[in-house]
Amino acid sequence: MSDLQAHAATIRAAHRRIAPYIHHTPVLTCGRIDAIVGARLFFKCENFQKIGAFKARGAFNAVLSLSEAEAAGGVVTHSSGNHGAAVALAARTRGIAARIVMPENASEAKKAAVAAYGAEITYCAPTLAVREATAADIARRTGARMVHPFDDDAVIAGQATAAVELIEAVKGLDVVSCPIGGGGLVSGTALATRWLEPGARVLAAEPAGADDAWRSFASGVLTPVDHPQTIADGLRASIAPRTFAHIRAHVDEVLTTSEAAIVEAMRLIWQSMKIIVEPSAAVPLAALIERRPPIAGLRIGVILTGGNVDLDRLPWTT
Amino acid sequence: MSDLQAHAATIRAAHRRIAPYIHHTPVLTCGRIDAIVGARLFFKCENFQKIGAFKARGAFNAVLSLSEAEAAGGVVTHSSGNHGAAVALAARTRGIAARIVMPENASEAKKAAVAAYGAEITYCAPTLAVREATAADIARRTGARMVHPFDDDAVIAGQATAAVELIEAVKGLDVVSCPIGGGGLVSGTALATRWLEPGARVLAAEPAGADDAWRSFASGVLTPVDHPQTIADGLRASIAPRTFAHIRAHVDEVLTTSEAAIVEAMRLIWQSMKIIVEPSAAVPLAALIERRPPIAGLRIGVILTGGNVDLDRLPWTT
Repeated sequence: MSDLQAHAATIRAAHRRIAPYIHHTPVLTCGRIDAIVGARLFFKCENFQKIGAFKARGAFNAVLSLSEAEAAGGVVTHSSGNHGAAVALAARTRGIAARIVMPENASEAKKAAVAAYGAEITYCAPTLAVREATAADIARRTGARMVHPFDDDAVIAGQATAAVELIEAVKGLDVVSCPIGGGGLVSGTALATRWLEPGARVLAAEPAGADDAWRSFASGVLTPVDHPQTIADGLRASIAPRTFAHIRAHVDEVLTTSEAAIVEAMRLIWQSMKIIVEPSAAVPLAALIERRPPIAGLRIGVILTGGNVDLDRLPWTT
Repeated sequence: MSDLQAHAATIRAAHRRIAPYIHHTPVLTCGRIDAIVGARLFFKCENFQKIGAFKARGAFNAVLSLSEAEAAGGVVTHSSGNHGAAVALAARTRGIAARIVMPENASEAKKAAVAAYGAEITYCAPTLAVREATAADIARRTGARMVHPFDDDAVIAGQATAAVELIEAVKGLDVVSCPIGGGGLVSGTALATRWLEPGARVLAAEPAGADDAWRSFASGVLTPVDHPQTIADGLRASIAPRTFAHIRAHVDEVLTTSEAAIVEAMRLIWQSMKIIVEPSAAVPLAALIERRPPIAGLRIGVILTGGNVDLDRLPWTT
């Protein structure tokens, strides 16, 4: 069995495991945006997913994959928001405890969501090192099992199921596009695309202010960004060796995009499609509009990753 | 043929006529809102409709129903926004001129939409009398045919098609609910419900600050409101004799709701469903939450009428 066949089997199993607990989200199109981009875009609406983001897929797969013994002490993770809410919901669904480490500067909407799912929240300084150390300490003290936001094969297989549904819903895609944060979604998306639509290009996008994947992809050397500066709060994490390997093997291109383009694309989606997406979700469209890759007339699948925004603090009113 | 059978035939013909030009919009559900209301709600998402509101249905039916001779001089209407955009789009689609009279205080989003569809806009003082006089004057001068926003059988038949799709998509509805402005949508909705789901109750809702339908329904005497005060800009019109007759004959109950409840329900829809609706669209949900009619456990269809809001001026940030 080839490496890709093994991944395909893992992704298929993940999809079966999580299907009863997640939404099969719709794919929407928008003539006005197609006219602006000059291509046919198919938006996979993970903003309508449970907890308002694709992260439900990976978290459910990871939590439901644990053996009874592994699950007994509950789960722990660190997250600026969506992954934390997803792990909290998955743990509550399984009936085990969830402990979530969140940076103090996480958005109010995301703090409230994690709390609403009944998780125990620990706030910490907003650096990766402190977050990881705090979560590791909790794991040691409580026996909770770590569910990493992206550096985890079960999480990656779960995230891949969004692209599986997109590719199955829209035949003949020429390009599949998603944003890169820590790389869990793009790893799963690239694996699913190589498996189910091998002729399609995988075009990933990230904020210029958090361009670790672009730097790493261009140089071939994993190059984290220490102080990411972007409104796309879901994309501030740097990729890990595991996700970098998938990106190198299966992603065709990484585009970066400016903060202004992200806000403009987010507003364009709200205005034209009448749906709410968070800044991170607008990054692929922003890159297509700002960077103008050669995509005229192509059929492009875009994963709209989430819709959790603080409605009191919109980027164009504050 | 009974009166209702005649309406059914008219509505069916309207649906066939407009189907190639409108979106068959989705019906969405939301567990969080169901829990708050204590019933099962099915939201017909006309915010995803062409021009961002159900008004496309009535306008297309009216414009496409004109004979060649009637259409030769183009069309004219007065509208605070959505109906104007709808008539502009329908006229452009048919290749005839559209002249739209808009009150000076119409929202910027709605002015821009009407202009984008290529209509000629005439601004006037924001009173019904001035709007009607201005439109009548244009009709006289240019030979344009008037397409009234609601006091028009072809418009009512077109608006009815939203409820037709809702009832066909969701079997066994106990209640069908929509807002009342001038009464075109509620007339069509009530006719469609009596025809296709005769056991369901028709529950209409309007802002307390524009409660002409409630006053008229309660007293049996058409009672316009001269100075409506509501954020629900699509619902400031008063009903007409034609729509009042449908309301008296086929609507079971009219509920009013406060401005605070409208804003809260609008925000709840944005936050929980990740979709953008305008204040008018939130009025039925606001009434269900604020007025607590006896609907526990029922299956309730709700028409979300539109999604055209000025993103720079949200009711909770200004």
